[in-house]
Amino acid sequence: MLKKVLNINGLPRTLIVDPEASLAKVLREQLLLTGCKVGCNQGHCGTCSIIMDGEVVRSCTVKMKRVPDEARITTIEGLATPDNLHPLQVAWMAHGCAQCGFCSPGFILSAKVLLDKNPNPTREEVRAWFQKNRNACRCTGYKPLVDAVMAAAKVVRGEMRKEDLLFKPVGNKIYGTTYHRPSALQKVTGTWDYGADVNLQMPPGTLRLALVQAEVSHAIIKGIDTSEAEKMPGVYKVITHKDVKGKNRITGLITFPTNKGDGWDRPILCDEKVFQYGDAIAIVAADTEEHARAAAKKVKVDLEVLPAYMSAPAAMEPDAIEIHPGTPNVYYEQGIVKGEDTKPIMEDPDVVTVEVNTYCSRQPHLVLEPDCGCAYFDEEGRLTIHSKSIGLHLHHAMICPGIGIEPEKLRLVQNPTGGTFGYKFSPTNEALLGVAALATGRPVTLNFDMYQNITYTGKRSPGFVKCKLAANKEGKLLAMETDWTIDHGPYSEFGDLLTLRLAQFIGAGYDIPNIRGKGRTVCTNHAWGSAFRAYGSPQSFLASEIAMDELAEKLGMDPLELRLKNVYRPGSTTPTQQEPEVYCLEEMLNILRPRWEEAKKRCKELSTPEKKRGVGLSIGMYGCGLDGPDGSEAWVELTKDGVTVGCSWEDHGQGADIGALTHAHETLRQAGFKPEQIKLVLNDMAYTPNSGPAGGSRSNVMTGNAIRVGCEMLLNAMRKLDGTFRTYEEMVAENIPLRYEGKWAASMCTPCDPETAKGEPFGNYVYEVFMPEVEVDMKTGKVTVVKFTTIVDAGVITNRTVTDGQIYGGLAQGIGLALSEDFEDLEKHTNLVKCGLPFIQDVPDDIEIIYVETPRATGPYGSSGIGEGPLTAPHPAILNAIYNACGVRIYSVPALPEKVKAGLEALEAKKNATADKE
Amino acid sequence: MLKKVLNINGLPRTLIVDPEASLAKVLREQLLLTGCKVGCNQGHCGTCSIIMDGEVVRSCTVKMKRVPDEARITTIEGLATPDNLHPLQVAWMAHGCAQCGFCSPGFILSAKVLLDKNPNPTREEVRAWFQKNRNACRCTGYKPLVDAVMAAAKVVRGEMRKEDLLFKPVGNKIYGTTYHRPSALQKVTGTWDYGADVNLQMPPGTLRLALVQAEVSHAIIKGIDTSEAEKMPGVYKVITHKDVKGKNRITGLITFPTNKGDGWDRPILCDEKVFQYGDAIAIVAADTEEHARAAAKKVKVDLEVLPAYMSAPAAMEPDAIEIHPGTPNVYYEQGIVKGEDTKPIMEDPDVVTVEVNTYCSRQPHLVLEPDCGCAYFDEEGRLTIHSKSIGLHLHHAMICPGIGIEPEKLRLVQNPTGGTFGYKFSPTNEALLGVAALATGRPVTLNFDMYQNITYTGKRSPGFVKCKLAANKEGKLLAMETDWTIDHGPYSEFGDLLTLRLAQFIGAGYDIPNIRGKGRTVCTNHAWGSAFRAYGSPQSFLASEIAMDELAEKLGMDPLELRLKNVYRPGSTTPTQQEPEVYCLEEMLNILRPRWEEAKKRCKELSTPEKKRGVGLSIGMYGCGLDGPDGSEAWVELTKDGVTVGCSWEDHGQGADIGALTHAHETLRQAGFKPEQIKLVLNDMAYTPNSGPAGGSRSNVMTGNAIRVGCEMLLNAMRKLDGTFRTYEEMVAENIPLRYEGKWAASMCTPCDPETAKGEPFGNYVYEVFMPEVEVDMKTGKVTVVKFTTIVDAGVITNRTVTDGQIYGGLAQGIGLALSEDFEDLEKHTNLVKCGLPFIQDVPDDIEIIYVETPRATGPYGSSGIGEGPLTAPHPAILNAIYNACGVRIYSVPALPEKVKAGLEALEAKKNATADKE
Repeated sequence: MLKKVLNINGLPRTLIVDPEASLAKVLREQLLLTGCKVGCNQGHCGTCSIIMDGEVVRSCTVKMKRVPDEARITTIEGLATPDNLHPLQVAWMAHGCAQCGFCSPGFILSAKVLLDKNPNPTREEVRAWFQKNRNACRCTGYKPLVDAVMAAAKVVRGEMRKEDLLFKPVGNKIYGTTYHRPSALQKVTGTWDYGADVNLQMPPGTLRLALVQAEVSHAIIKGIDTSEAEKMPGVYKVITHKDVKGKNRITGLITFPTNKGDGWDRPILCDEKVFQYGDAIAIVAADTEEHARAAAKKVKVDLEVLPAYMSAPAAMEPDAIEIHPGTPNVYYEQGIVKGEDTKPIMEDPDVVTVEVNTYCSRQPHLVLEPDCGCAYFDEEGRLTIHSKSIGLHLHHAMICPGIGIEPEKLRLVQNPTGGTFGYKFSPTNEALLGVAALATGRPVTLNFDMYQNITYTGKRSPGFVKCKLAANKEGKLLAMETDWTIDHGPYSEFGDLLTLRLAQFIGAGYDIPNIRGKGRTVCTNHAWGSAFRAYGSPQSFLASEIAMDELAEKLGMDPLELRLKNVYRPGSTTPTQQEPEVYCLEEMLNILRPRWEEAKKRCKELSTPEKKRGVGLSIGMYGCGLDGPDGSEAWVELTKDGVTVGCSWEDHGQGADIGALTHAHETLRQAGFKPEQIKLVLNDMAYTPNSGPAGGSRSNVMTGNAIRVGCEMLLNAMRKLDGTFRTYEEMVAENIPLRYEGKWAASMCTPCDPETAKGEPFGNYVYEVFMPEVEVDMKTGKVTVVKFTTIVDAGVITNRTVTDGQIYGGLAQGIGLALSEDFEDLEKHTNLVKCGLPFIQDVPDDIEIIYVETPRATGPYGSSGIGEGPLTAPHPAILNAIYNACGVRIYSVPALPEKVKAGLEALEAKKNATADKE
Repeated sequence: MLKKVLNINGLPRTLIVDPEASLAKVLREQLLLTGCKVGCNQGHCGTCSIIMDGEVVRSCTVKMKRVPDEARITTIEGLATPDNLHPLQVAWMAHGCAQCGFCSPGFILSAKVLLDKNPNPTREEVRAWFQKNRNACRCTGYKPLVDAVMAAAKVVRGEMRKEDLLFKPVGNKIYGTTYHRPSALQKVTGTWDYGADVNLQMPPGTLRLALVQAEVSHAIIKGIDTSEAEKMPGVYKVITHKDVKGKNRITGLITFPTNKGDGWDRPILCDEKVFQYGDAIAIVAADTEEHARAAAKKVKVDLEVLPAYMSAPAAMEPDAIEIHPGTPNVYYEQGIVKGEDTKPIMEDPDVVTVEVNTYCSRQPHLVLEPDCGCAYFDEEGRLTIHSKSIGLHLHHAMICPGIGIEPEKLRLVQNPTGGTFGYKFSPTNEALLGVAALATGRPVTLNFDMYQNITYTGKRSPGFVKCKLAANKEGKLLAMETDWTIDHGPYSEFGDLLTLRLAQFIGAGYDIPNIRGKGRTVCTNHAWGSAFRAYGSPQSFLASEIAMDELAEKLGMDPLELRLKNVYRPGSTTPTQQEPEVYCLEEMLNILRPRWEEAKKRCKELSTPEKKRGVGLSIGMYGCGLDGPDGSEAWVELTKDGVTVGCSWEDHGQGADIGALTHAHETLRQAGFKPEQIKLVLNDMAYTPNSGPAGGSRSNVMTGNAIRVGCEMLLNAMRKLDGTFRTYEEMVAENIPLRYEGKWAASMCTPCDPETAKGEPFGNYVYEVFMPEVEVDMKTGKVTVVKFTTIVDAGVITNRTVTDGQIYGGLAQGIGLALSEDFEDLEKHTNLVKCGLPFIQDVPDDIEIIYVETPRATGPYGSSGIGEGPLTAPHPAILNAIYNACGVRIYSVPALPEKVKAGLEALEAKKNATADKE
């Protein structure tokens, strides 16, 4: 131990520290300065940035023995006070920079140092600063952060007032404005307490858990020996499957009867088999996390290793054994049948056809906040589990039988949550926490580190997709044939639904009268398939939007004109034979056309032999709902001070809070309520009803409507005959109920058929057109997206800043998907950098968003969802742009430099061969 | 567990709490808001005061289940920032309110609420507020706190600027000014981390200790059974005397060879016997303090209970067994022999004699911060113990052999420390921490609660004193005979020295040519005798200063005139036959005389039949040093930025930091150094030399001189031939050493003789004259001190605010000693209130201090010590005032209402008897 004096936030503090401990650990654990967020804990992500002696320091990388004596350290807690924020904090709130907020303290402190050194930076200097200091953000696409720094710099320079940074409503209207989200203040002050922070704030005596995890991908468990671990210092109990009181399985909630599995395939704690790397085999409960982790290493697991099927083709080999004995590895098949048989059309000599085969990768979510959670028994004796769950009631149903508890004795709560982008649509730590709390009777906490979070949470399921298009010579699409295979990992969660998604979205956006195709879900031993933003559509559009480009080339048509000719118009139907709710794509492409022409010209002009530029196109769309019937609930209660709105609209940075507030306010402002009079109660099953999971861009529609309905019920109760409204006191005096349950169901939706995919799965869609411009380094093959233009129709915009932020962030993830992100190699893809997380210089600052706001009849106040839109199809547009730039056609993402370089070399060889021939 | 949302310092936080836990515990342990200090943990002292929903709340009294949801809580951390303090914080710094600082956050928050409600309070309203809210302070005597609130209120009202509250040096001189102490900023911001705060900031994995303590006062230990405790949750180890590697004894550092004990009488962990209530028998080390305390209750101790000797007379009975077998209960005797035999004088019929027998009580220190400490192995493998030690090197010597470690492997560090008023002159938790760290090999922490702190730390040793004075008819003192008995509890620490002190101070201040007397130290089973401010003198002056009043009455002289006639003048010597270093008492009494006359008149005028007023007088003095030879060391080092000064001047609120700074600056300012260029390194044996313990008003003289010497050595090295000074760079360039060891020894002192007490024990004294005015409630006997005037000569004043603060605080403790404080009944005297801690309304706001600054030849810059002065003899003055008011003569403190009432009733009965007779 080392006794050390540090000057923390302006005051000297004497600390006794382990010289090998990181500064971040000491700040967090020994001073509870939890505004210092730890993401990767290896210096990659910058969330733990603090200011030390005037410089930005990633505090996770500095061991205490290297911290200078009396170092002057500023954490976010010392930057300012809630009632007198730093201009950067206000700008961060104003520009929507705090989406999930996990990176906000680190970014703000980093920017503080920049402005201290240079109060008048250019945008490029700001970007270079964040790149240099490795400040990563997974939500915002970075552009809003630069906007915020530029705005705060003006305040610092005295060119504007801090008070003017934040939008203030005019005429009591916030719908469609840039009003800040209610959680922003906590996010920019470091007090939005994420799971790891909550865990540090647990009462003394809380047990700290560590997992014993499989280090092979497929094996039979012959024995588990916990005796040595039990003797380790601080150990309270080692928990195995024998301690699990229930079925010890998390149910995959099978949707279709044709699914050959029963969904009870995922163990909480492995008993008979290991199905994938990282599977939890035991839990050690100890007094400290260090003790628990040390003891976990001493648990001995006797394994008989089996062949590991690390991709769908391997698991489909005839000699492959059943991963789940009794269930075939191909456990679900989905067909699509629309219009006439496509075979005769494809064979018609007057018809132009193209066929592409694409591979969309096992994209990792690369969230900055690892999974952390806790469990305890509440004042009513309910087992209460806090986690990053974005589907409280869904997860309740999925884990309850497995841990063995009566449903009414299980309460799930969402902690303030970093971005999940869908992986938390799956339970991860919830059942483990529940089992441990039940087995010990004590409060427990479980923290994943970044390695665990990357290697042992769900991923986007890779998709192998064939898409064959047929068009007449004028470019009118006549038919499509498709085939797709989904590598879903070992667990069935929503695997059938995902496979259906490809039927819904391959070729979507275009009027294709005749379609035939088949897809399948394959069980493998790689990471289990979980939800990921735009779930199922990136696999789909990668194929169909490259095919459209190839078709245009073959037809000698401009790619935009080919698309324009075929997009939905009245009379068109989707692949599932549904009539679109709006026909906006034609207008969107017309708006884009002049920009497209300029871009083509610009790319030619800016191309050099060393760096070639190209522009690409694609369209994407996504349904806002849970495939088929969907609905939501919320309650609304008049109080002395205003109105309280309760719902389970889980927030993972997408803006549940501002969404709920905005819909409530838009309704309640009829009675004069101000935004600040509306209080939200969110995401605690003890208080909030089933509003459905926060995924698939559904919440703004479903829960937005439920809130609207609840607020309308309240207003109806408050309304007097003369049209004015009763006060709270009058309501009480007249004994009129104060609380109303708002419910809304998407009754227009029907599920799709497993054979034909026919159905009306979604009531609303979001539509987006993508036009990236890329630069290809002809020497290295490295591709950079230098500009991005997008046209979006998500209906009437609920909140402009949030919508902008969703699009910027989604495009950044699309760039990652296209160019760098992957989780394939269990040895290599183990950290954010190696998994290809885009940093600020990987994402263009020059992003133009153009909105077409076609009102949706069934969206609240005309709005639809937005979250999935920007990640539906940005990647085929980038691949199309690469082709446009340099002639290399890439069919599988990520288009890593080596892949592009190989393509360039092949082109060169071909050219030389042709030249030789001539 | 309860999930609760609270608004903490302006931001909502969600906490998971035990509904039965106190708000203070949650704020401290779960949010590490350690600015919320917990003193008594039972609502008596107000240190844990916070603001909840606009009201002052003692957070230790509020269970979490009673905290309203979304309660708005402000702790000191949320009041302001270090660079923009609240006016109350600045006023607290400016007025020296943060002495030890432990009560400061609670007082400041309490005052904040007062000023929010009433920005223009009267002094009496401020006092009523603090009384109502039970804000207790043990250091300041309360007056400076009221001054600070009045000043801050002016700022709040806009009548003065916050910047003008704090004294700013003029002409680079701070000596004698009200310059604030360096630690004040941390104290008023709640970041002066006391032991319990340090303990909460220890790294994860630190073991938490609890003691198994004796619940009887005297017993033989037949067995200790730890088996059940070892099985309790979270327990790591149960430590008994068998685990102690050394002698298992703390040495009492016997001073005199005539002492019949050897000093090795105090066990670290009891092995053969229990000697007093609370003796430590075992230590439980567990993961949490709760677990450790629960397990401690399960340790079974088999005892054979022995007769407990709870006072000196009981232990002196002929049939009393030896508490420490082999050592008589009366283990030290001290004589005094000065001048001629007193017997003939006493018997001379022309001589007027009086004899009084007084009892000075087992005064408890009643500190607000309980003993808390930690131990760990530092980076060099040294066992490092943090505690409230006010004698690091002393304690090192006392505990080293007992715990069994090489001296160079033991490092003691003083934590920021609440007031100790001397009890931490004794080791308390140090050896226990060391034993536990050695036995477990892990960092350990040990927190006493207030019950433990009161019942198991040393107390002022009760003194039974006889004083017989003889004077001629003109009032000239001729002789004194004394006899005294000290009840020193079971442990010998400094017991012989204490007994000598009474020889030194009974009758001190007066020229008494002939003295005979004898005193003794008695071993008992009540609380061990430890140092307490003015050590040994309150027992002395209680007797001699009442005797002086009785003598004046008998002579028909005014008490002031009698004293004035006899105080030291050139030619006088002290009881130990030493020439006083200055003769200031005559001037002091002359200054007092007009005030005395006014007071007598005023008391008469203000007396009513129901409430009688009276005024009393006494004089006190104290030696500034460790009885006999004494000295100190400090080092001084020139740095790039200024000068660093290192010493072990332990601070327990008396102002070591400002003392060190002021002496250093007074020297260094010759070379132009500013106060802010002087850095202090204090109280860590790894860095700071032996400067002696911080007690007996010695440090300002000894360490002040050592610092002065060190600084002078540095200046000499820096001085050029032309009288200017070399810069740091020049010193380095010329290869002149930068660091100097300043040493100073009080070479003029000699030890006193055990037979005659002859010697020159101190080089400097502090002199004080006391004049309290009291009001006696004739119905209840309750005495209130309504005004206090004091004349002080402590030489040239080093820092005015600190000196004022010492006097106000010492007088308040004197009022407590006189009227309310006691630790006698182990069943009753177990908390601050029952032990008689004075609150603000128990101490007058009307206190006048008049300084006579006679320069001391051997004090640095003419200064002497001050700390002990005000507690030497305020209590006999109060008893004299009670007599003056109502005619009741009290000889034993505390003069509780029932005692005074009984006296009034006896007087009444006597009057009635006389009336009957007449």
